[in-house]
Amino acid sequence: MSRRRKISILGSTGSIGGSTLKVAAANPSNYDIVALASGSDWKTMVKQALQFKPELVALFDGGAADKARDSLQGAGIRVISGMEGLLEAASMEHADTVVSAIVGAAGVLPTYAAVKAGKVVALANKEALVVAGHLISAEARDSGAALIPIDSEHSAVFQVLLGQERSAIRRVILTASGGPFLGKSQDFLSRVTPEMALDHPRWKMGPKVTVDSATMMNKGLEVIEARWLFDLPPEKIEVLVHPQSVVHSMVEFADGSVLAQMGLADMRIPISFALSYPERVDLGFPPLDLTSVGPLEFFSPEIKMFPCLGLAYRSLEEGEGMPVVMNAANEVAVGAFLKGMLGFTGIPEVVKSVMESPPQFDDRTIAGVLEGDRMARERAKEFLRQAGEVQ
Amino acid sequence: MSRRRKISILGSTGSIGGSTLKVAAANPSNYDIVALASGSDWKTMVKQALQFKPELVALFDGGAADKARDSLQGAGIRVISGMEGLLEAASMEHADTVVSAIVGAAGVLPTYAAVKAGKVVALANKEALVVAGHLISAEARDSGAALIPIDSEHSAVFQVLLGQERSAIRRVILTASGGPFLGKSQDFLSRVTPEMALDHPRWKMGPKVTVDSATMMNKGLEVIEARWLFDLPPEKIEVLVHPQSVVHSMVEFADGSVLAQMGLADMRIPISFALSYPERVDLGFPPLDLTSVGPLEFFSPEIKMFPCLGLAYRSLEEGEGMPVVMNAANEVAVGAFLKGMLGFTGIPEVVKSVMESPPQFDDRTIAGVLEGDRMARERAKEFLRQAGEVQ
Repeated sequence: MSRRRKISILGSTGSIGGSTLKVAAANPSNYDIVALASGSDWKTMVKQALQFKPELVALFDGGAADKARDSLQGAGIRVISGMEGLLEAASMEHADTVVSAIVGAAGVLPTYAAVKAGKVVALANKEALVVAGHLISAEARDSGAALIPIDSEHSAVFQVLLGQERSAIRRVILTASGGPFLGKSQDFLSRVTPEMALDHPRWKMGPKVTVDSATMMNKGLEVIEARWLFDLPPEKIEVLVHPQSVVHSMVEFADGSVLAQMGLADMRIPISFALSYPERVDLGFPPLDLTSVGPLEFFSPEIKMFPCLGLAYRSLEEGEGMPVVMNAANEVAVGAFLKGMLGFTGIPEVVKSVMESPPQFDDRTIAGVLEGDRMARERAKEFLRQAGEVQ
Repeated sequence: MSRRRKISILGSTGSIGGSTLKVAAANPSNYDIVALASGSDWKTMVKQALQFKPELVALFDGGAADKARDSLQGAGIRVISGMEGLLEAASMEHADTVVSAIVGAAGVLPTYAAVKAGKVVALANKEALVVAGHLISAEARDSGAALIPIDSEHSAVFQVLLGQERSAIRRVILTASGGPFLGKSQDFLSRVTPEMALDHPRWKMGPKVTVDSATMMNKGLEVIEARWLFDLPPEKIEVLVHPQSVVHSMVEFADGSVLAQMGLADMRIPISFALSYPERVDLGFPPLDLTSVGPLEFFSPEIKMFPCLGLAYRSLEEGEGMPVVMNAANEVAVGAFLKGMLGFTGIPEVVKSVMESPPQFDDRTIAGVLEGDRMARERAKEFLRQAGEVQ
């Protein structure tokens, strides 16, 4: 590559963080890991720190940070903690690229900090754009930060839009694998367990994202992300179910041309692109064999069976505050489902109910958005408690 | 569009020429037709000239030019003839874009003239690059001419390469519909008539190109074209049979990403792109409905059943003069097939035989190449005469 990139990884102990480190390890001359940040998994963090020798390690959890500090004594690595620690890792002067891969709303403030610091932000955290897309895109315009998506779908759109006339976009088509329950009956869905939902047929991802993928809320969040990443109205963003997950997404232009990005279902491809953009690095993958991946099929999504997708579009239509509410309610509902406290089909019910009596908050600041997020979580928990009493 | 384009169309009375005029007529504020050129079809030419009011009309055939001049008297249109006429239409000062759509080797000199004049050359004539790719690409570098392909496959590759890192190209994958005889037996192929070969399932094209499509020589010529258009060695150019003709071609990069262009099988899309590049014009086509085009399938080509494709690769490997020989022999063989004088499976046999005892010529000048073309045609005709005596 033309220059060595200095990278800070927020969420290094998670699924995307781990894949990012694999990409960096495969091309050590291209990348320098200058900071690693995570929540509480200090054991994994210590291993990563010893391997990649960053200047800085940040763990949100104070006790975990203490343990990591002990284990890393003498390694010349500064270990910090709390949200301030994450924010420092997000905006440190030595990093030119910040990988934002903390899952959930906890990633919003660090992502905002990286954007404010004018970094190249390789974005895997969906929630940052879902709850604060309007604030983050405005800030990126001011600071000159570049937002490069890591999600395979948005990476596909980002890649095909390079060098193309943006004003000629007719629509963006996000593909969805359909998740593990494509074509299943309502009755089947009502009996889905966390184990079943976590067994995704195509992509290996963290538990929250895997459940979101099974409910298609993941695709809903991606529609909202695309709205901000590509500055498009929701009616120009469509979803097609594509069970083979070979076409990662598409853009149709005014002249009828559709440009698509395809590839193996391996997150290292979009991660590597985000880290090396606008260059491309050989990852050692075999050529894509289109004769063996099977015929490529495309279906319209079943909004009835997967109401989360419709709820996401509705939240965009209803205004900037509503995606905050929807996302918060969904995180609570998915958490409850994973603990066995809520059925699979209960997830959209919780989200819908909270969206029907949303908390009031000021969405013009990050603080206001996070307060709205907190209030919506309370509503969702309250709803779950009441539903628990009723059962 | 940002500026009105002044267009000269070489081959206006043919299939691509007609589609180009449709594109121009659909967006009259974008395009000014300043010249129309063709071979001998003066009746169609007169109609086109009266509709589009070019400054110049060129007909290769002198008698046809006389008739057109009579019919266009008083219309304020200059009518010229001969190869000089075509060359004047190809290089006229008033044109900024020249559509090169004369079929066959007759298009080589006019295309070369347009490139030499530094025009934007919207290229549909395959033979120019097949026989003189080395000379034309060198000339384009000198004159600053831009070569924009009109072939749907090369247009696809050209479109997806915009804004991408060229040095990271791993391979170009040209798709082929497989033609009307995909999956047929050798026995079936030996009984194919011109009527059968002219009934192409996906694309409406002129007779020579349609037969080339049925023998897969069309794809072979496209491999050679791609070699020059994208400056790639033959081993980086692959062919995949894709019967649905939805994916028009693809490029795979070092990181495993494959970018593809898709769309309806309508030549107006690549023609419009070549005329409006880098902008895109709304052509009024409905959105591409991927849920209704059927699953997209990809197969490796059957080189055994369609030996013309292998002959084209071989001609590239053997050197710059051999594609001239191959192309000339193929034109003669296809002509004989269309007249009922040669069987369908005889086409590759004629080509192979002429390639096995090629004429000697200097391929470092256009004149030398055209002399080689003439000599190879003679050999092919001679071969046909001898084969006729033997039968």
